[in-house]
Amino acid sequence: MPRRTLKPSAALYPMPVVLVTCGDMERPNIITIAWTGIACSDPPTVSISIRPNRYSHELIQRSGEFVINIPTLELLEKVDFCGVTSGRDRDKFGECGFTALPATKVKPPLIGECPINLECTVTQMLPIGAHDMFLARIEVVHGESDVIDEKGRIDASRAIPITFVTYNYYRLGDYLNSYGFTGGRLSE
Amino acid sequence: MPRRTLKPSAALYPMPVVLVTCGDMERPNIITIAWTGIACSDPPTVSISIRPNRYSHELIQRSGEFVINIPTLELLEKVDFCGVTSGRDRDKFGECGFTALPATKVKPPLIGECPINLECTVTQMLPIGAHDMFLARIEVVHGESDVIDEKGRIDASRAIPITFVTYNYYRLGDYLNSYGFTGGRLSE
Repeated sequence: MPRRTLKPSAALYPMPVVLVTCGDMERPNIITIAWTGIACSDPPTVSISIRPNRYSHELIQRSGEFVINIPTLELLEKVDFCGVTSGRDRDKFGECGFTALPATKVKPPLIGECPINLECTVTQMLPIGAHDMFLARIEVVHGESDVIDEKGRIDASRAIPITFVTYNYYRLGDYLNSYGFTGGRLSE
Repeated sequence: MPRRTLKPSAALYPMPVVLVTCGDMERPNIITIAWTGIACSDPPTVSISIRPNRYSHELIQRSGEFVINIPTLELLEKVDFCGVTSGRDRDKFGECGFTALPATKVKPPLIGECPINLECTVTQMLPIGAHDMFLARIEVVHGESDVIDEKGRIDASRAIPITFVTYNYYRLGDYLNSYGFTGGRLSE
């Protein structure tokens, strides 16, 4: 198959797409983020990248706190809405009809409609270019009982998340296998 | 729905899972990475996190170069194999039967069996804990002609990638919509 050279771009995929809450219970805000990833397993650390002109950038830089809320398929329209609007002008929490639940360690609320919520505290902000990257410690993980399996692990097939691929939303598909299934051997 | 508190962990999902090549054409190595994300759109910048004891960490730290190869569903067994074995002991490229194609700007090869390849040069290494995070500029993007649409964009539905969710592999599912489809308005 012939191979073409494309312009350098953020062509990594598939990406997560999450609702990040910031501010506090009285005046919470939400921003949709796909430029996020795991930076370290221990201590559990995430990165989120935000343009400096976004309202959420200001709130997170000021407080050093945010919550990552993992949405499900049913929330697709609200996920998109929170990505293309600004909390400077409007109350995204209210417009989406989301339930703000108090977090335990940080001031921004959890979104009650999202089955998994990660409370995070910023450890470092790195200016890179169009985006600044916030590195943050995952302090507390909350999960709805029905997405947690018998062993206390998150079962994503019980609350289908959304995936982001080159500016398109996709559904998570079928379970294939577990990490380590080859045991370091390829079948013949 | 009652909500439980879980132990802090790297519970972000769905994550990408990619084959990262390092070394050079003569002695290439491959490591499977799920702890990767976009750090910045412009300049296009990715992060990959690797434990310091991994052989690939040594190779990437030495050369400051790697290639991100985005695998498809059909490569699942090889993706897992390259995650649980070490290139110190074995030739993963050879065992997988992968085709090493020369890159244009960096020394590590592209994997010919992966439809998309991103040539990257390291700009910064950040020790965080169990993992070190490498930030790297995406210098060149290569794509197989049949996964590029009429507008020169990558169409992931033509080469289904693998998604990583809490240590399980999932298939990418159906296309849902494009970013910005709400235009900042929720339907009633």
